[in-house]
Amino acid sequence: MKNELRGLRAACAMALACLTLGAGAGAATKPPTMADVVKNSKPSDWHALDPAHTLYLELASGRVVIELAPQFAPNHVANIEALVREGYFDGLAILRVQDNYVVQWGDPDAEDKTKQKPIKTGKRTLKAEFTAPIDAKIPFVRLPDADGYAAQTGFSGDFPSARDPRLGRAWLAHCYGTVGVGRDLDADSGGGTELYAVISQAPRWLERNITAVGRVVQGIELLSSLPRGSSTMGFYDKPEQRVRIARVRLAADVPAAERTNLEVMRTDTPTFAALVESRRNRIDEFYKVPLGHIDVCSVPIPVRATNMP
Amino acid sequence: MKNELRGLRAACAMALACLTLGAGAGAATKPPTMADVVKNSKPSDWHALDPAHTLYLELASGRVVIELAPQFAPNHVANIEALVREGYFDGLAILRVQDNYVVQWGDPDAEDKTKQKPIKTGKRTLKAEFTAPIDAKIPFVRLPDADGYAAQTGFSGDFPSARDPRLGRAWLAHCYGTVGVGRDLDADSGGGTELYAVISQAPRWLERNITAVGRVVQGIELLSSLPRGSSTMGFYDKPEQRVRIARVRLAADVPAAERTNLEVMRTDTPTFAALVESRRNRIDEFYKVPLGHIDVCSVPIPVRATNMP
Repeated sequence: MKNELRGLRAACAMALACLTLGAGAGAATKPPTMADVVKNSKPSDWHALDPAHTLYLELASGRVVIELAPQFAPNHVANIEALVREGYFDGLAILRVQDNYVVQWGDPDAEDKTKQKPIKTGKRTLKAEFTAPIDAKIPFVRLPDADGYAAQTGFSGDFPSARDPRLGRAWLAHCYGTVGVGRDLDADSGGGTELYAVISQAPRWLERNITAVGRVVQGIELLSSLPRGSSTMGFYDKPEQRVRIARVRLAADVPAAERTNLEVMRTDTPTFAALVESRRNRIDEFYKVPLGHIDVCSVPIPVRATNMP
Repeated sequence: MKNELRGLRAACAMALACLTLGAGAGAATKPPTMADVVKNSKPSDWHALDPAHTLYLELASGRVVIELAPQFAPNHVANIEALVREGYFDGLAILRVQDNYVVQWGDPDAEDKTKQKPIKTGKRTLKAEFTAPIDAKIPFVRLPDADGYAAQTGFSGDFPSARDPRLGRAWLAHCYGTVGVGRDLDADSGGGTELYAVISQAPRWLERNITAVGRVVQGIELLSSLPRGSSTMGFYDKPEQRVRIARVRLAADVPAAERTNLEVMRTDTPTFAALVESRRNRIDEFYKVPLGHIDVCSVPIPVRATNMP
């Protein structure tokens, strides 16, 4: 009955674990599977994460690596980097884990002005950056597949993104792993002191309604497997249920020997286009009907350790 | 800073926890929020789960309630019910938890014919039931929103579903919480001895490629928060990492006092249509831009305890 398992194994889908699978070695006439695409990629199909815009969120269980997207939310990203550099997040906690939605972290005492953690160089609130102007600073490789939530979807650097030429605006797509800025009802009430990561069906309705600042590129499972909070909206009931954040650092501030050196597959390459096609029409032996469609949040953007072959 | 939390609280989205939120009590001119819709629903907007087609998957951490969909996969559902009644799943285990994909359970010794758990009245394999004919046995309330994966999407009884009139076929949509049948490469190699639940971005590409048999209506968080397996495809490395299944029973076989009595909101009602619209155009105070679109896997189908007001 191992065979029954093998079936779903072939269907491995989103998980980056797929990347370590042996290539399918399909017949020459067959288009490549995703594993083939990754295996046959060239070094130039990958680029290293920029340590100046990479966060390490350190938990007792391990390190979560977050790539920030300054091109989409320059002020929020600069503020988060300032908060990180002043040690704002160190010793704070994961406060909320809501099933099929988000993991959220910040200051447990944020609501109490007499106890809240002081901010030194950062800011508590900023003007919203829900969208950014469509311009040359934001590359865009369009996905031809129709999308219900946005006029256009595609990939901007290492991020799934969307845009609307009529509005002249672009934004990060809200997919599994997207990191965003918690805020109050007022659009300008967030700043980056409270952050969340998506662990769900893509909550696309948040797009253009919240400032997204990046995505988790490694370690999302350390967040997504946390116990769900039993209070309203997945907040933990009791302080002792919260998960302590040992510290958050910018990769650039971490000694080279302690860094997690990752490469992301470039999205502006024929290799990535082949990967997208391998997901649009699954031709693994497991699949009987290729669906001819892929949505922007279902395309894995491969990540690998720099020292991988 | 409690306010910052309140923001995402308003955005509560998929989680059924939202249903327990106080209604937004919006101005009379405003369309209802989802909380309003649920609060103002009538008893006739709900129906009780059928105990003959409801499974209780019992773990040390609690009970997972699965509603089966015999109208879509009659032979597989009948076989799973036979396997359950003969105690096949009792003492088996969750073998695989792959981040952003599936939780899968079955017989750890399935691959070894000398050790595998014997089957009494059920069958190991069945002819695939990837799709069902479009006919009167399967109701369909169509969602007007475009979908990239299927010609039509909507709701069939308590299930998100899809269909293609040209093919004359209907199928369960593969959404968060969908339960399906693991199989080998051969289409007819599954039968229901290995089952999985989706804990990810909807893997829509599995549709028409695998037999879906139902959905988790309560307790998905007991599965989705499990530690991820570190072997290929999320299989647990070591036997002791597996999560034991105490037993699986049909609700109909459980004494009334021990049942989890749940009601599901009917999807063929004006109330459910109002709920869909409240998700298509979010008008909670939190939202600044209603997106005017909803996808079939992002519509929550509310579930509540029967004894709720």
